[in-house]
Amino acid sequence: MAEPRITTSGNSSLPVYERALHAALDHATAEGCPPRLAKAMHYAVFPGGARVRPQLCLAVAAATGDYDAGLAGAAGAAIELLHCASLVHDDLPCFDNAHERRGKASVHHKFGEQLALLCGDALIVEAFSSLTRAAVATEQAHRLPALMACIAGGVGAPMGICAGQAWECEPEVDLARYHQAKTGALFIAATCAGATVAGADPALWRPLGDAIGHSYQVADDILDAAADASVIGKPTGQDVALDRPSAVRQFGLEGAVQHLRELVDASVDAVPACPGREQLQALVRNQSRRFLPKGLVVQAA
Amino acid sequence: MAEPRITTSGNSSLPVYERALHAALDHATAEGCPPRLAKAMHYAVFPGGARVRPQLCLAVAAATGDYDAGLAGAAGAAIELLHCASLVHDDLPCFDNAHERRGKASVHHKFGEQLALLCGDALIVEAFSSLTRAAVATEQAHRLPALMACIAGGVGAPMGICAGQAWECEPEVDLARYHQAKTGALFIAATCAGATVAGADPALWRPLGDAIGHSYQVADDILDAAADASVIGKPTGQDVALDRPSAVRQFGLEGAVQHLRELVDASVDAVPACPGREQLQALVRNQSRRFLPKGLVVQAA
Repeated sequence: MAEPRITTSGNSSLPVYERALHAALDHATAEGCPPRLAKAMHYAVFPGGARVRPQLCLAVAAATGDYDAGLAGAAGAAIELLHCASLVHDDLPCFDNAHERRGKASVHHKFGEQLALLCGDALIVEAFSSLTRAAVATEQAHRLPALMACIAGGVGAPMGICAGQAWECEPEVDLARYHQAKTGALFIAATCAGATVAGADPALWRPLGDAIGHSYQVADDILDAAADASVIGKPTGQDVALDRPSAVRQFGLEGAVQHLRELVDASVDAVPACPGREQLQALVRNQSRRFLPKGLVVQAA
Repeated sequence: MAEPRITTSGNSSLPVYERALHAALDHATAEGCPPRLAKAMHYAVFPGGARVRPQLCLAVAAATGDYDAGLAGAAGAAIELLHCASLVHDDLPCFDNAHERRGKASVHHKFGEQLALLCGDALIVEAFSSLTRAAVATEQAHRLPALMACIAGGVGAPMGICAGQAWECEPEVDLARYHQAKTGALFIAATCAGATVAGADPALWRPLGDAIGHSYQVADDILDAAADASVIGKPTGQDVALDRPSAVRQFGLEGAVQHLRELVDASVDAVPACPGREQLQALVRNQSRRFLPKGLVVQAA
C-alpha cells in the first residue's frame, strides 16, 4: 500500500479521521456558538461508534495509490459526521423514539428535541464545510467537486440515506432500493471517496461499498432480533415493533446468518484490482466479522 | 452593471436562480427517489416566497463585475434551498408548530413530521450538491471553495441560521448574536456569495448583508405583531405566544417602525464601492420597502 503524505497537524496518536472530526467540531463550536448546541454536537460525535465508514474510506485510499492523508481523513470525517447526524435525527420521537444510542442517552433525550434537530442540521452542514476547508488546506481543491458528489450522493435524495429513511414513509416499499439507500449509500460514499482521494475512478469502487453496506444492514437486522440491548447500546426488537422490513423477518435467524456469510464473501470478491488488493480483502473480511458481537460471530462463522 | 455570461439552459423566461432551483429539484427527485419525499421537497420549494436572498445574491454579482450567470443562479438557489429547509424544520411541532406557511399547509402538516424532517435534511444536502454541479458545469470550479465557505457559514454552526435558532434553547440569549445568526447570516451569505461569483472580496460585502438581514428581522417582528395572518400567509402573534425576543416587544410598534427606517438607510449606505453601486442602492431601498405589506409600508414610510 502507498505511504500517505501527512498534512494534518494535532494529536498524532489519533487516526487521521479522528483528528479531522476534532478539527470539524472545533470549527463548528467555536466562539459565538450557542453553548448547548455546541455540547449537543460534541455529544453526538464523541465518543464515537466503530467508525467503520471513515476506516473504510482510508483503507480504500491506502489500497488504491498515492494519496493525501489529510484529505482522506477529512473525507472520512465528513462521512462520519453525516452518519452521526442521521443517527440523531433517526432517534427523534417522530422516527424511532430511541432513548439510548451508543450506550448513553440519545441526543434528544439528553438535550431536547429542538437541539437534536438543530444538532443534526448543523452536523450535515459541517460535513461539507470541513471537507471544503481540508481540500484547500491540503492543496487538493481540484478533488473537491468529485468528493462532494460522492459524499452528497450518499446522504441526500434521490438515493442517499435521507431517501432510504423516506422509504419507510411510503405505502409501497422497493426493498432493494430501501436497503441500498438507507445503509448502502454511505458505505458506497466511503469507498468512492477513498478512491477519489487517491485519484482513482470512484465508479469501480461502488460494488464494494454496496456489498459491505448490504452485509452491515443484514448484521444490523440480526443484532436487532438476537442481541441483548446492553451489548449493542441501543434498543433491540425495533424491526418487529416498528413493522420494518428486516432480513430476519424475511429469511428467519438462521437464514439471515447464512445470507450474511454469503454477503461477506461477495464483499471480499468485490475489491477491485489495485496495489493493495490482498490487504484490503483481509481487512474487509476481518471488519465484517466485527459487525456482530462475539457470541453471534461464532454462530455466523 | 456587467452583462452576465449565460451558461444555463432551460426555460429562459425564468430568472436564473429559479431555473437553478428547478435543476436542483430535478436532480434530487430523479428516478429512484421515494415518491412522497419527492413531492414534499417540491412542495417546500415551489411556489416560493419573495426569493429575496437569491435576488440579492444576483444583484450583488451584477453590481460588482463580470460574472457567470449560471454560477450566480446556482449560488442564489443553494441559499434559497437552505432557507426553505430552515422553514420546514422551524415549522415542526417541536419549534413553532406552524400549520401554515406561504398561505398553504406547512410541510409537516401536509406530509407528516417524518417526511418534513427528511425533506429539510435532503434540501440542505441538495444545496451543496447542486452548487458543486453548477461550478463544474460552468467551468468555475475554482470558485467552489470560497462559495462553499460563504454559504455553509451562513447556515451551520457557530454562527449560521442553525446556531441562530439554537439561541432559543439557551437560558441566556445574546440578542445581537441571536438576530445576526438567525436572520442576518443567510443575507450575509447572499451578498458574500454574489461578490465571490464576480471575483470580488466577500469580506467587503458582509456589512451590507448584515444590515439587510437586520432590517428583515425587524420587519418580520413588525409583521408578527401588526399584520393579518391572511396577508402574510403564516400565523401571527408568535413572538409573544412563544416568548421570543422581538423588536416590537423591545421598542413598541412605533419604535420598531422607526428603527426599521434607520436600518434601511444603513443598508443603503453599506453598499461598497463598485461599478453598479447606485443601481444596487436603489434596489436595496425598493426591496426593503417590500419587506412590509402595503398598509404597513405607508405607516413606515
